[in-house]
Amino acid sequence: MLWNGWGDPAKAAPLPETVTALLRDLLGVQPRSTPALRLDDVRPPAPTTAPAALRALADAVGEEHVRTDAESRVRHTRGKSTPDLLRLRAGDVTDVPQAVVLPAGHDEVLAVLRACAAHGLAVVPFGGGTSVVGGLAPQRSAFVALDLRRMNALLDLDPLSRTAVLQPGLRAPEAEALLAARGFTLGHFPQSFEWATIGGFAAARSSGQASAGYGRFDEMVLALTLATPEGTIDTGRAPRSAAGPDLRQLILGSEGAFGVITSVTVRIRPLPEVRTYEGWRFASFEEGAAALRRLAQDGPRPTVLRLSDETETLVGLAQPDAIGADPAGTDPAGGGAGCLAIAGYEGTAEDTAHRRERAAAVLADCGGTPAGTAPGERWAHGRYSAPYLRDALLDAGAFAETLETAAFWSRIPELYSAVRTALTDTLTRAGTPPLVMCHISHVYENGASLYFTVVSAQGEDPVAHWTPAKHAANEAVLAAGGTISHHHGVGTDHRDWYVREAGPLGVSALRAVKRRLDPEWLLNPGVLLPTD
Amino acid sequence: MLWNGWGDPAKAAPLPETVTALLRDLLGVQPRSTPALRLDDVRPPAPTTAPAALRALADAVGEEHVRTDAESRVRHTRGKSTPDLLRLRAGDVTDVPQAVVLPAGHDEVLAVLRACAAHGLAVVPFGGGTSVVGGLAPQRSAFVALDLRRMNALLDLDPLSRTAVLQPGLRAPEAEALLAARGFTLGHFPQSFEWATIGGFAAARSSGQASAGYGRFDEMVLALTLATPEGTIDTGRAPRSAAGPDLRQLILGSEGAFGVITSVTVRIRPLPEVRTYEGWRFASFEEGAAALRRLAQDGPRPTVLRLSDETETLVGLAQPDAIGADPAGTDPAGGGAGCLAIAGYEGTAEDTAHRRERAAAVLADCGGTPAGTAPGERWAHGRYSAPYLRDALLDAGAFAETLETAAFWSRIPELYSAVRTALTDTLTRAGTPPLVMCHISHVYENGASLYFTVVSAQGEDPVAHWTPAKHAANEAVLAAGGTISHHHGVGTDHRDWYVREAGPLGVSALRAVKRRLDPEWLLNPGVLLPTD
Repeated sequence: MLWNGWGDPAKAAPLPETVTALLRDLLGVQPRSTPALRLDDVRPPAPTTAPAALRALADAVGEEHVRTDAESRVRHTRGKSTPDLLRLRAGDVTDVPQAVVLPAGHDEVLAVLRACAAHGLAVVPFGGGTSVVGGLAPQRSAFVALDLRRMNALLDLDPLSRTAVLQPGLRAPEAEALLAARGFTLGHFPQSFEWATIGGFAAARSSGQASAGYGRFDEMVLALTLATPEGTIDTGRAPRSAAGPDLRQLILGSEGAFGVITSVTVRIRPLPEVRTYEGWRFASFEEGAAALRRLAQDGPRPTVLRLSDETETLVGLAQPDAIGADPAGTDPAGGGAGCLAIAGYEGTAEDTAHRRERAAAVLADCGGTPAGTAPGERWAHGRYSAPYLRDALLDAGAFAETLETAAFWSRIPELYSAVRTALTDTLTRAGTPPLVMCHISHVYENGASLYFTVVSAQGEDPVAHWTPAKHAANEAVLAAGGTISHHHGVGTDHRDWYVREAGPLGVSALRAVKRRLDPEWLLNPGVLLPTD
Repeated sequence: MLWNGWGDPAKAAPLPETVTALLRDLLGVQPRSTPALRLDDVRPPAPTTAPAALRALADAVGEEHVRTDAESRVRHTRGKSTPDLLRLRAGDVTDVPQAVVLPAGHDEVLAVLRACAAHGLAVVPFGGGTSVVGGLAPQRSAFVALDLRRMNALLDLDPLSRTAVLQPGLRAPEAEALLAARGFTLGHFPQSFEWATIGGFAAARSSGQASAGYGRFDEMVLALTLATPEGTIDTGRAPRSAAGPDLRQLILGSEGAFGVITSVTVRIRPLPEVRTYEGWRFASFEEGAAALRRLAQDGPRPTVLRLSDETETLVGLAQPDAIGADPAGTDPAGGGAGCLAIAGYEGTAEDTAHRRERAAAVLADCGGTPAGTAPGERWAHGRYSAPYLRDALLDAGAFAETLETAAFWSRIPELYSAVRTALTDTLTRAGTPPLVMCHISHVYENGASLYFTVVSAQGEDPVAHWTPAKHAANEAVLAAGGTISHHHGVGTDHRDWYVREAGPLGVSALRAVKRRLDPEWLLNPGVLLPTD
């Protein structure tokens, strides 16, 4: 993973010339003049942790699994939001951990928590490090990053019940490979797939691109083990239960603030025989949204179902790999007019054929025009490439960031309009008029999520340009009845709006849980819940 | 509702002579010799509540909505478990409330909670009064029953989002009628349907007979309002969210211990065009369970899917209305050999036909023999009649009770065997050998629920005979990896086992929530969570 960008450096691709020209002409993007900072140039302040604390950590996990070198610490500084990357690129490592600690299992996690409690160190659980909401930047200067990468085993697989017990540090491709060897899949494919971990998916209520078919990650979780400073919670003895509030749903979304998730029992499904993705064109976002709603409500449900708005379709971001290839939109698989939807089908040959045929009839009945499998294949090929594209945009001197929300269907038009307006107005006033694109990324019977991408010039200080726009978008989300996050989570970036969404008494109840499980407020202080 | 039994007295039916003979010959059931107690004969102790407290309650809801007459109080004493009914029939009203208070809305509920806090009165939220787990018997002598029947409105219906906002005191048939007038259904049809309320469904995580198609009640809930002594929680702005732990799932299953649910936003669906139920025969429970598992895992999913074991099939309880009609099992729609499954399909004509045809192929492939629609229709006709049958059995001097659990599929055989053995051994040792019947009542991809019915002679003291058997069944459930309740809830009856299932730290976290929302522990003290 790039220390100051996304993913595998070998996968980085420069922007096509047409895109660079578009950025310059449309948004006034200027090439960066300063050379990029190298990792070696970044000098975090020396750790201030007492030797006794480091010894206690070494006792917990073994000396070789406590790392205090600069590179390890810088690589565990913040997450992957655009402000995170911009700050790192500027050499700002104020949120650097004191040390990186790598436990091998549940008991070692408990031992680390005890050592940290004894020495007043905060703890930030660290999976893939892919948070885009400030989930790895606690409000405490002295903290350790608890990197879970050594906890990367498939602990159990029950083919009859179709369940698997996974350790939290498994990255999604590793988990899929272990399951595939037994003929199964989890079916969780978020954009962060290549790097994010099972524990992170659970802690932040992730949702994947195939959620229409496989469900959200929180719907896949059947049981959890949580290590806390006060001991262990093991929960989940049946798919569903009436034995009290669902403790699983209290741990899911707790973002490391209640404890460290040390195992996750998930629902698994047989590997699909067939995977087919195809494109559909709609005259407008409204028309396309109505079609998606009809499939979500009355079926048949595709496995993947998403719809880009006019701008995103025109730019080609519906299929990131194709961006700039066909700006005129003459190729039906490229950009072009109207709105592009992607419908995908995974499963047995018989089931996918039947669903696809019936869904096609519904989509056509709703005004859709089939665009064939080419856009679907391009989308599938580029489904994880948007974060690489962001790196290229940042390198080219542009600013690019995403945000997302969800609401009930009847609120979607207002939510869409309000967030676009907030972003456009705020950034235009700041002198960096943006391109705002959107797609419906996940559908439900009763509502949908909206995923926005913003591209603009960086301006003098890109973080200072972005912050008011992001705040205005957050305000627009709440005012239009949306949730502050559909699948990115709360972290520190959304916390103040989350507190308003959940309400003072709801937040206070969660704080009571935190006090019980983490009385010294060591776990991710300031992430999710305010510290006071 | 009968004060000492179930439901509408007009629907009571005496047992067929064949059943009475069977009870006598097989189980040694003796007709009761003592005449039944009448409601007028039951004399609860006079309320000890101070006049100032009653005045405060009258100030909150109006004088005419504070009832202290004996009949109102007796009618709000405990719920509808067999021990509850037997105690009432014996004139035992030790759990009688001081008063019955009927608020008209959220603000009045808050006012009642304030009044109760000021005067040290506990509060038991009361919907349909159908708890079968001691959920209405708090561990405090001075409490009021908060009857929510006046809060029975459909507050809003959003046809586009397919959501409806319901007040908690709506009984299920009332809610269905209000929705049906607009072309919608909730699709929640538990055995308690005729009497239970929306608030109770939410508070106790109810699951209906059509859960394979419509989902459990907790899956239908999109938003909730909770009135607590410390204020209000409003939660749910989107179908799904990554904004922290799911507060809805903390309120669902809280059984009145965290607050009073004052509105519930639910997912609704169009009224089905077609409802078809049919029977399938399997050679054994194991074979039938494998068929249900295959449909639950690979589809197509019927709307209703259940399977009676050999004993329940033989007795005819798979279709309660048919009991005794055909003890020899010569009528394929009656009792008989093997195991009877019911598969039901609700939806559009096209969708139900397609699902039914494909499911039939799967069921046949799994060894099933079609038994036609007659058993399905009988099941549907008698789907709410088992509690009436229990009254008739109690009247005839027999003991009858039910219990239920759930687990992952691979644990189901062990769970089935362990609970049967526990019940049979304990009651046999007590001199009242039982008939133990079971059916799979709800199916999931990863597991299923088991619903047991026990019939025996009453013995000297039926509650004393039953208690050790119930405790042995609870122990067997936990030992075999099941949950202490799949859809009845915890109440006071399951609390000690629930505490072991959730674990000390999990329970402690929930107690921290309770302390925050209900610092004086006024709400259902001792229900769900232990008081110390």
